[in-house]
Amino acid sequence: MDIHTINGKQLIGYEESAEGNEYFHSVDPSSGTESPSRFYKATSDEVNRAAELAERAFSIYRKISGQDRSAFLLRIADELTQDAAELVRICGSETALPQGRLEGEVVRTVNQLKLFASVIKEGSWVDARIDTAIPDRAPLPKPDLRSMLIPLGPVAVFGASNFPFAFSVAGGDTVSALASGCSVVFKAHPAHPMTSELVGKAILRAAKASNLPEGVFSMVHGDGPTTGAALVVHPSIKAVGFTGSFKGGRSIMDAASKRPHPIPVFAEMGSSNPVFVLPRALKLHHEKIAAAYVQSLTLGAGQFCTNPGLLVYEEDSSQETNVFRSALKDSISQASTHPLLTEAIGSAFSKGIEERSAHQGLAVLASSTAAEKHPVPTLFSADYTAFLENPTLEEELFGPSGIVVNTPSKNELLQFARNLSGHLTATVHATDEDLEEYKELFDILEQKVGRVLINGFPTGVEVSHAMVHGGPYPATSDSRSTSVGTAAIYRFTRPVCYQSFPGSLLPDELKDENPLGIWRLLNGVRTN
Amino acid sequence: MDIHTINGKQLIGYEESAEGNEYFHSVDPSSGTESPSRFYKATSDEVNRAAELAERAFSIYRKISGQDRSAFLLRIADELTQDAAELVRICGSETALPQGRLEGEVVRTVNQLKLFASVIKEGSWVDARIDTAIPDRAPLPKPDLRSMLIPLGPVAVFGASNFPFAFSVAGGDTVSALASGCSVVFKAHPAHPMTSELVGKAILRAAKASNLPEGVFSMVHGDGPTTGAALVVHPSIKAVGFTGSFKGGRSIMDAASKRPHPIPVFAEMGSSNPVFVLPRALKLHHEKIAAAYVQSLTLGAGQFCTNPGLLVYEEDSSQETNVFRSALKDSISQASTHPLLTEAIGSAFSKGIEERSAHQGLAVLASSTAAEKHPVPTLFSADYTAFLENPTLEEELFGPSGIVVNTPSKNELLQFARNLSGHLTATVHATDEDLEEYKELFDILEQKVGRVLINGFPTGVEVSHAMVHGGPYPATSDSRSTSVGTAAIYRFTRPVCYQSFPGSLLPDELKDENPLGIWRLLNGVRTN
Repeated sequence: MDIHTINGKQLIGYEESAEGNEYFHSVDPSSGTESPSRFYKATSDEVNRAAELAERAFSIYRKISGQDRSAFLLRIADELTQDAAELVRICGSETALPQGRLEGEVVRTVNQLKLFASVIKEGSWVDARIDTAIPDRAPLPKPDLRSMLIPLGPVAVFGASNFPFAFSVAGGDTVSALASGCSVVFKAHPAHPMTSELVGKAILRAAKASNLPEGVFSMVHGDGPTTGAALVVHPSIKAVGFTGSFKGGRSIMDAASKRPHPIPVFAEMGSSNPVFVLPRALKLHHEKIAAAYVQSLTLGAGQFCTNPGLLVYEEDSSQETNVFRSALKDSISQASTHPLLTEAIGSAFSKGIEERSAHQGLAVLASSTAAEKHPVPTLFSADYTAFLENPTLEEELFGPSGIVVNTPSKNELLQFARNLSGHLTATVHATDEDLEEYKELFDILEQKVGRVLINGFPTGVEVSHAMVHGGPYPATSDSRSTSVGTAAIYRFTRPVCYQSFPGSLLPDELKDENPLGIWRLLNGVRTN
Repeated sequence: MDIHTINGKQLIGYEESAEGNEYFHSVDPSSGTESPSRFYKATSDEVNRAAELAERAFSIYRKISGQDRSAFLLRIADELTQDAAELVRICGSETALPQGRLEGEVVRTVNQLKLFASVIKEGSWVDARIDTAIPDRAPLPKPDLRSMLIPLGPVAVFGASNFPFAFSVAGGDTVSALASGCSVVFKAHPAHPMTSELVGKAILRAAKASNLPEGVFSMVHGDGPTTGAALVVHPSIKAVGFTGSFKGGRSIMDAASKRPHPIPVFAEMGSSNPVFVLPRALKLHHEKIAAAYVQSLTLGAGQFCTNPGLLVYEEDSSQETNVFRSALKDSISQASTHPLLTEAIGSAFSKGIEERSAHQGLAVLASSTAAEKHPVPTLFSADYTAFLENPTLEEELFGPSGIVVNTPSKNELLQFARNLSGHLTATVHATDEDLEEYKELFDILEQKVGRVLINGFPTGVEVSHAMVHGGPYPATSDSRSTSVGTAAIYRFTRPVCYQSFPGSLLPDELKDENPLGIWRLLNGVRTN
């Protein structure tokens, strides 16, 4: 396989394949021009082959040590680092994302690989539990029981449009699946097929260099309703990772739950991430908060899952709230922007702006006069009662637009919070006195979201051990998971218990002598 | 509320309620006689009230310390211990289960409460993770991030027919939900409504004595398709725990996945728990294994989720395999039994025996001549090829019946294992040499089940830290969980992350000073 030129084919095992007739092109969103390469949509044969190879590879890959899987992830990180300049150049031409942002995203993706590599090299993540036997227990002997997490099987991963590296081919879902010992069939996002191919080939080079079985990673091109759906219902596929729209995520959930053997789906479907500005913080920092809010809202043209699309405050007609609104207007008026990732995303945004403009519960607060063309960053304004009547106003509009919601007092602000659906994040701007007075708000918000922030903004999701990028439906399909951070590995695992096994047959993680030196729960006590 | 007499009403919060007209009776399976008390099926108003009260109670109960929740569980254990004799007496009269078995089950249920109490008192189970801030990190500061598991919300729990204590009102699902901080609405199993009422009242006495909010536990009577279904789709319910039939479990899965806001379902749907007898073990221990297998198969009239309904061995026409088959015949011929739990279970078993008897791939090996009436313990015999043609033979027949499957050699035995669907357990009888030669079998089996046993029998599920009572679909709805053992608590939780919180607003589990002294992951390192 030619590893550095772009052929537009599926990467199935270690082979390239293009058996179908349908194809599409990579498009530069700045100019609308198509790149010359054709990207062939996978045929159902190709999807089946990728899934079956993944199943065969899984039976070998799952038994490889954490040490060796760790080396594989580091090797992918090296390949990406070596190709970083080329990757950023190609990616910029098909996403219109600025060079600096993409360079940062490659670094983040590389660091994510390294972080997962460190976790599986250390090895304690498997939650090893040992309950030793008590042969003379009455009335019945207690058997020796040992359990740990093992990988689920081949995982279908769907690339996201908005993070061509960090939530795409070698992104968080792929890496957490590979880290746990699962093989991956990746469905590339058509918004950046060239980048996908290059990153896919980097993974395959790393897999080959690590002597891994063919099929540990494969990648197919195509659309959601055919290629994606075929993957989700393939019997070899045992779990799904997805980052994208609510509509796409829910259709995967529905397809997976209707399978003869249903499988878990981890769909991160975005949200509008409410930001609450409490009265004293508003009085003290209104201008700063307004400017920082608009900056977070328009960062990357608002194309983040954690984009803060709702801003909530108490309107008391004071000078400060007037200044706050003025500052919001000023900031959004001056906000520049750049093209959205795809024409479809651009159209959906424009349509959303039109609908909001026509909505009787919303008024345009201000929109950018600095943006030279679409998308035009726009802030809307609403009384909280509009949300009582139209809960759909809470839904995400992907792009640089937000709704500024005013409530008459604390009670209604709390009520607004109580009425919220599931979101990825909620943010509160507050002084110490605000925090004291609004304790109840935090009780409410932690039940609505995966991450609550104080005096910050939700964009910029740290890849670390304690990060939770998740939250109740409809933000995700399964609130019991995170798709960012090291705990993401748990999505693709299940526990298995070995009863009365001789040491020679036990995995190293569960042997008496603890050869890996990992933390384990020994008769209920944490020990290493 | 009258706490020791049986009124046949719903227990909603701290009130009894019987607003409907439909009712049923407790039936003694030995005699078919009905007890005089009427048990009223919950109306939809009653179901709604229970769910809404559970939601209100949850908002208070979730914030109660692990220490206090632990005391509540211990109090339930005390109540059950005090009432043990009465509970066993009443339960025996509506389940026909022997006194000794029921006494043991009460002890097991009490110990289960105590084990969960110890886990939440200690507190480390919440998986607290702290990533400290690096304010001067370039290019962006690293925020302070802290995460832990919090409870999901009100859980609907369905009682099982076959464990009137351990998988019922105060059983594993209820206890793990209450331990995690969730409130519970319990749907009592109509096979033992008197026992359910007494245990439900014991929980309510403990809740009152612990000053817990009304609705932390409620219990309704009724059937699956109406009462149960109404609970599963109620918007206040955030998760479901179920132990029962495949049909019942799958219908709950389907209903939950079609909700506007889908919720997780943890359904343990049983399995036929294959037992493999490898050649050398067979040669050495054929008579002992045959007798012990039949004992496990007929224990409790075969009414266990882990009942070993499949026995697989290599038939080589040797004297030993002949003796093995003879010993199986002898054992099953002498097997006594007692009535099944309900008339419906009895009819389903009889129908299953008829169908198996008429099945062209199966032959009757032998059946009990000692059983005085139905159910008659029966062993069938089949060539492994029958399973290739009819995978449904692998499905559970609830009751004292198994299929003895012979394969011509190792290859076919491994192939039989590879073709297995998901089960709760798989067992292997083997000598050290067998283990060495059949390593591949264990690779296969650990991908098919939640627990693999060597030289034992799967009935008798230890309640401990390392137990996994789960397994791939169709054994359960979600292989990533266990419904027995302390890890069952994780089913009803989700992670939440607090970013840049002042210590005063953080839960104790995440405060700098670690006031609870729990194990935490501090910047990726396990520490306490």
